[in-house]
Amino acid sequence: MTRVSRRRLLGTGALTAAGAVVSAAAAPSAAARTAPLTADVVIVGAGLSGLTAARDLVAAGRSVVVLEARDRPGGRVYGMPLGDGTTNEGGAEFIGPTQDRIAALAKDMGVDTYATYNEGKNVYYRGGKRSLYATDGLLGAVPPDWGVVDLELALLKLGGMVKEVPVGEPWKAAKAEEWDAQTFHTWSRSNSLSSGARFLMDAFASSTLSVRSQEVSLLYLLNYAASAGNEANPGTIDRLINTRGGAQESRFVGGSQEVPIRLAARLGDIVHYNAPVRSIVTEAGGVTVTADGITVSAERVVVAMSPAIAGKIDFSPALPASRAQLVQRYPMGSVAKFVAVYDTPFWRADGLTGQAVADSGAIDATFDNSPPDGSRGILMGFMNQANIRKLDGAPAADVRAAGLDSFTKLFGDKAANPTLTAFQRWDNETWSGGGPVGVAPPGALTAFGPALREPCGRVHWAGTETSGYWTGYMDGAVRSGERVAKEVDAAL
Amino acid sequence: MTRVSRRRLLGTGALTAAGAVVSAAAAPSAAARTAPLTADVVIVGAGLSGLTAARDLVAAGRSVVVLEARDRPGGRVYGMPLGDGTTNEGGAEFIGPTQDRIAALAKDMGVDTYATYNEGKNVYYRGGKRSLYATDGLLGAVPPDWGVVDLELALLKLGGMVKEVPVGEPWKAAKAEEWDAQTFHTWSRSNSLSSGARFLMDAFASSTLSVRSQEVSLLYLLNYAASAGNEANPGTIDRLINTRGGAQESRFVGGSQEVPIRLAARLGDIVHYNAPVRSIVTEAGGVTVTADGITVSAERVVVAMSPAIAGKIDFSPALPASRAQLVQRYPMGSVAKFVAVYDTPFWRADGLTGQAVADSGAIDATFDNSPPDGSRGILMGFMNQANIRKLDGAPAADVRAAGLDSFTKLFGDKAANPTLTAFQRWDNETWSGGGPVGVAPPGALTAFGPALREPCGRVHWAGTETSGYWTGYMDGAVRSGERVAKEVDAAL
Repeated sequence: MTRVSRRRLLGTGALTAAGAVVSAAAAPSAAARTAPLTADVVIVGAGLSGLTAARDLVAAGRSVVVLEARDRPGGRVYGMPLGDGTTNEGGAEFIGPTQDRIAALAKDMGVDTYATYNEGKNVYYRGGKRSLYATDGLLGAVPPDWGVVDLELALLKLGGMVKEVPVGEPWKAAKAEEWDAQTFHTWSRSNSLSSGARFLMDAFASSTLSVRSQEVSLLYLLNYAASAGNEANPGTIDRLINTRGGAQESRFVGGSQEVPIRLAARLGDIVHYNAPVRSIVTEAGGVTVTADGITVSAERVVVAMSPAIAGKIDFSPALPASRAQLVQRYPMGSVAKFVAVYDTPFWRADGLTGQAVADSGAIDATFDNSPPDGSRGILMGFMNQANIRKLDGAPAADVRAAGLDSFTKLFGDKAANPTLTAFQRWDNETWSGGGPVGVAPPGALTAFGPALREPCGRVHWAGTETSGYWTGYMDGAVRSGERVAKEVDAAL
Repeated sequence: MTRVSRRRLLGTGALTAAGAVVSAAAAPSAAARTAPLTADVVIVGAGLSGLTAARDLVAAGRSVVVLEARDRPGGRVYGMPLGDGTTNEGGAEFIGPTQDRIAALAKDMGVDTYATYNEGKNVYYRGGKRSLYATDGLLGAVPPDWGVVDLELALLKLGGMVKEVPVGEPWKAAKAEEWDAQTFHTWSRSNSLSSGARFLMDAFASSTLSVRSQEVSLLYLLNYAASAGNEANPGTIDRLINTRGGAQESRFVGGSQEVPIRLAARLGDIVHYNAPVRSIVTEAGGVTVTADGITVSAERVVVAMSPAIAGKIDFSPALPASRAQLVQRYPMGSVAKFVAVYDTPFWRADGLTGQAVADSGAIDATFDNSPPDGSRGILMGFMNQANIRKLDGAPAADVRAAGLDSFTKLFGDKAANPTLTAFQRWDNETWSGGGPVGVAPPGALTAFGPALREPCGRVHWAGTETSGYWTGYMDGAVRSGERVAKEVDAAL
């Protein structure tokens, strides 16, 4: 391969400080799709991390091409059609305090936020019995039995361990080997006795990661909590799981997908859709990235996706063993969301937040996903990994029935008759492979963790999994895009 | 796609009972490589499982095309060049009692076996101290300290649990959930107190699976031992780890690779090399399998490789979620072998078997890999996952020095000056992704285990990972090929 030209696809039209839409005049036209393209940097994936990296590299005067497998931007950020022309979040949804980078991006894109509905009591459903509790968050309070003390002691211990994890480099913790040798399930059983505490610790893993507590390394989970903060505010379990003051505090007006959609629109024609990347070849002088219908020559490539999905790309020469082994050891969770639309948010009149946690039924955690004005009521339920397995291959009618059965048990008979329902599972999505995030089983982070971010020659890595703060969240994705853009710009 | 023809590529030239080489007259010529081929069955992968499936399907009168990514058959069975025109096993090597199916295949191919050299004492190297022990096998005996009792009690418990695992369906064990919730590391620490016992249990996991004990689910390990047998002889830990009476009892004259090489030769031109499969499309009436340079239309496809590597193929329509998630949860170990050739097997004169276990240095387990007549001496050392990480990216001279340093500590100064050395690591092999076998972390088998073997429409699965007995071994590969051939033949 000859030396890649430094042609600036966007010329002087880089993003202005005010965020004006860049002219796409110099970008390749759709008709040129089959001709080989050249750029300084090719970015694989138009999720938040890839788009943010593109934004910053364009602003730095670099020419960029973004290749996206899907026909839309956003990756795991997606507005699920409700069937009436509107959408509701099928993937990443919330924003909370210390999530500064997604907040800045949303502000720049003109996407406002509003508080997640959080007035009233939450529902706790366990062993066929429904009760209510007043405190915020899934684990903020549990029904008054002796499990409360048991759980609080366990969380106190966990919280202390969280503080000992170097954010984004958990393999450097003094006790990294000990914590990475066991599952969170093992730890929770060794450090609690009550079934109530154990259930809620399982629910903690399941609702934040969409894997069973058996699957996740204790070290990974500790790092996940340590990452729930920013440079000035160390991460905590509470900030991870709470609504008020936590990661579920606010939502985006019009839906979270407005952020990547507007950013992609601003980037213009440098973003190519329906272009799944199949191979990345590094030769002296540059890389050649081949997608269906498009080949791009560039100096550097940013792979902006989860490790598991990056593992499907054919690299030549082969990636170093540590990276090749890592991508086999970072499986995605099995998150799914079921949404039902009602004429009114009827649960509010009953004094309920719309938030619930349940040990049975298809849905194990819920939120009020209504629009800001409450003009209609929308309940959203997470289906966890164990529950979604039972719906593998189920027809849509069965999924709907299972979802509504859960909502009815949690919020009463009014939940049985929605005007619309919608369902999104991520483990069936070829270009995500699951969600919300890649999760490390025991032994992976201590042996292979550094390969998450370490560039392999001209190949750089982004995606929320590579972020220190707010890994697994939109904020982590944006942070990773900003980090990789600096990394690549310095290397060019 | 139109209905696939049932053209018999091998016509009446199917394998005879006597194993005569089949005429390849009707097979496609090399010149036809770019033209689309048709067959009843396309098999992806020319390792032992794929080749065995091809053998049986051809014998059943089916037309078969085999597509292999590498330029050779055998997959993880490979004769590593020593540099003087001879080879030594770089991958799968041994054969032992109850491994009936690889034994039958080898016999049919005219490949003889001979006893692994096992006369004398074994070396135990720990904490910088070298000692000898007499009993067979890595764990058959340990130096006389109180760890012996500790270890024997732990192995007794483990052995009892092994008996409770339904071979090949560990998720059906009564205690499957409990055993799949923890790592083998957690179990070994909870059930032993001495550092000696713990070290040897780690060595057990490491030497059989090439992963650290932190990575492997207790349930997976129990199943691995349960699989070390046949229909008449239940699997045991001893049969897994022993030389005499165990999986390391014998070797193949000329090297294990003679088996797949001869089988592939017998199958003739239906095996296509340098043909990595990129996509498998199922449509009404058949499948279209696209490899570099070759497209094959068939009624059924057999994917004969580990789950992790199968996960790199692009399936359309997407595979069911349970399968898509499984392939993210079955990582390959990091096995590597270092071999040194000497004028004589000098350790034999010192009363040593050539077998050793070590807690430090690049090599953690060794065997005498000399030819049957002992006309020269060959030491083989396994480098485990933790050690091989330290040699990531190391130049060949450093690897050689590290290997010889280990051999010298274990077998004395004579080991320092070999005539030849060779090195094979599998985590750098694109088409294996590691070795010897895919290993399930906690939580994978109980949630996703059945997806290992369950066909997905016209897509069938083979590979040693899918075998009940001797999963992870050549015998398991052959068994899986025989099982899938029956499965596909019945479905055609």
